[in-house]
Amino acid sequence: MTILLSVTGFDPMRWLAALQQAGSERAIVLEPKDSTDPSIEYAVVWKQPPGLLENLPNLKAIFSLGAGVDHILADKRLPDVPVARIVADDLSGRMSEYVVWRVLDHFRRGRAYRTQQAQKIWHERMQPAAREITVGIMGFGELGRDAADKLRALGFRVAGWGRSPKSAEGVEMFAGIDGLGPFLATTDILVVLLPLTEATRGIIDAKLLSRLKRDTPLGGPVLINAGRGGLQNEAAILDALERDTLMEASLDVFTVEPLPATSPLWTHPRVFVTPHVAASSDPDALAPTIMRQIAAHGRGETLQHLVDRSAGY
Amino acid sequence: MTILLSVTGFDPMRWLAALQQAGSERAIVLEPKDSTDPSIEYAVVWKQPPGLLENLPNLKAIFSLGAGVDHILADKRLPDVPVARIVADDLSGRMSEYVVWRVLDHFRRGRAYRTQQAQKIWHERMQPAAREITVGIMGFGELGRDAADKLRALGFRVAGWGRSPKSAEGVEMFAGIDGLGPFLATTDILVVLLPLTEATRGIIDAKLLSRLKRDTPLGGPVLINAGRGGLQNEAAILDALERDTLMEASLDVFTVEPLPATSPLWTHPRVFVTPHVAASSDPDALAPTIMRQIAAHGRGETLQHLVDRSAGY
Repeated sequence: MTILLSVTGFDPMRWLAALQQAGSERAIVLEPKDSTDPSIEYAVVWKQPPGLLENLPNLKAIFSLGAGVDHILADKRLPDVPVARIVADDLSGRMSEYVVWRVLDHFRRGRAYRTQQAQKIWHERMQPAAREITVGIMGFGELGRDAADKLRALGFRVAGWGRSPKSAEGVEMFAGIDGLGPFLATTDILVVLLPLTEATRGIIDAKLLSRLKRDTPLGGPVLINAGRGGLQNEAAILDALERDTLMEASLDVFTVEPLPATSPLWTHPRVFVTPHVAASSDPDALAPTIMRQIAAHGRGETLQHLVDRSAGY
Repeated sequence: MTILLSVTGFDPMRWLAALQQAGSERAIVLEPKDSTDPSIEYAVVWKQPPGLLENLPNLKAIFSLGAGVDHILADKRLPDVPVARIVADDLSGRMSEYVVWRVLDHFRRGRAYRTQQAQKIWHERMQPAAREITVGIMGFGELGRDAADKLRALGFRVAGWGRSPKSAEGVEMFAGIDGLGPFLATTDILVVLLPLTEATRGIIDAKLLSRLKRDTPLGGPVLINAGRGGLQNEAAILDALERDTLMEASLDVFTVEPLPATSPLWTHPRVFVTPHVAASSDPDALAPTIMRQIAAHGRGETLQHLVDRSAGY
């Protein structure tokens, strides 16, 4: 019985080696023998070709190579077997690094000081204390919680927003459509870590941006999107920057990736662009968590971190 | 009986207001009536004019407006009364923000991604995990300990170096001249938070930089100086950058401040310059700690955070 590793958009060989290294009596293959290959029990995938998994008769579960699963669920011919995401310290740690890095760069006025340096200007900027700033985190799953802990340790106030009510120590929580307005009105720096679902697609639009607190200690609201590009309306972000209803943005994800050279986001002086690197999956760190899940499932144990397919994450 | 507030280099009025706001039955004055003014019991100073305090007959203690006291001890005519520094969450929090911000910007390859953005290049850089990086902190007082805690929370390994042996949970500690070589050889990112004393002046020199670990997961060693400009030999730093024995640097302090327009540090592509803003003293946050010390001393209690004048900090 074998494990299918199917990856689109990058070379699968590092994952293949890491999964083999993580150890299993099961062989790992990069292609099914045919569309009804009976030997395949588990699929480990990133953006698998649509229909690839549809007719595998003995498929028991599908594993994502990352925290998101939108790339799996986009396949309209996905068979009805459990889908599991990766939850791992390595992955949440990397995402929190990105979030803390970007929050601090906006908060400590990195753009202004880089501009001053280019002009050889020695001038101290007004610097609020972290306790005067509320970082609002949209999407309060494993990644949001970890980022909240690390931001709180640095003294920031943290607010959280999610689809359903949750609680987290020291975090002011908001939920659902009714909670969104109050959440945005209390937020100085907005961090988006939402999953991409039918309910969240395009959620960062002109209306949402217009509801962010204007009168912030930093001089205007800041947007950081490390979730998915499909969450954001890029024309609305550019428009808000032009109208100064948005002060600065850090974007790691885009509606089209790689970001086309024609996008004005590349050259906007108040936008920081990274090429979807906020929390890259490290095969060596993550392969053992997948292989442990497969081994446990083989022994009849329940899979962890399962996706609610009706919710889309 | 009065308190003397003496400040050189910036406007004292925000401090005057904050000290008055913090409350005391004692009046606060900006000048002694004359060099032997008997009414002055306490002095709160930043870089006081040399000799100003020498002949005040009833002076009981001197307070620094910041964590450093080199600006006070530089006065060769300083009377023999206790000198106290400020230790406050606001001050250490701001310094740790700067340290974490700069560590993350070097670690997450901020310079490379800003350059790529300017050229519209979509390309993922190799990104080590935080656990693969050792941040070495020189100067392990209140500020060093706070920065170490916050870096460890983000997953970095932390090493510490100080004049005398100390211990801190989860930190590999080195001490004294004998410990310096092993400390530098284990350090990927060097953070300097030392006080400026006769023993530390110019300590960041060609020899020290040459002893930093070369083969780091980031491709070369990084220097972050948020202590005092007098600690560093700027020609040696520039030379190490040219020889690629130093990969990047973030400097908040300089031997001459403001940094002269002629300094090549301003324009070096691998140096990030800030105008001595890593941990600016916030009068509203810090004045109460000074006034509490004065009130306690007036009641006969012992002063805290006293300076060892023979050690110079």
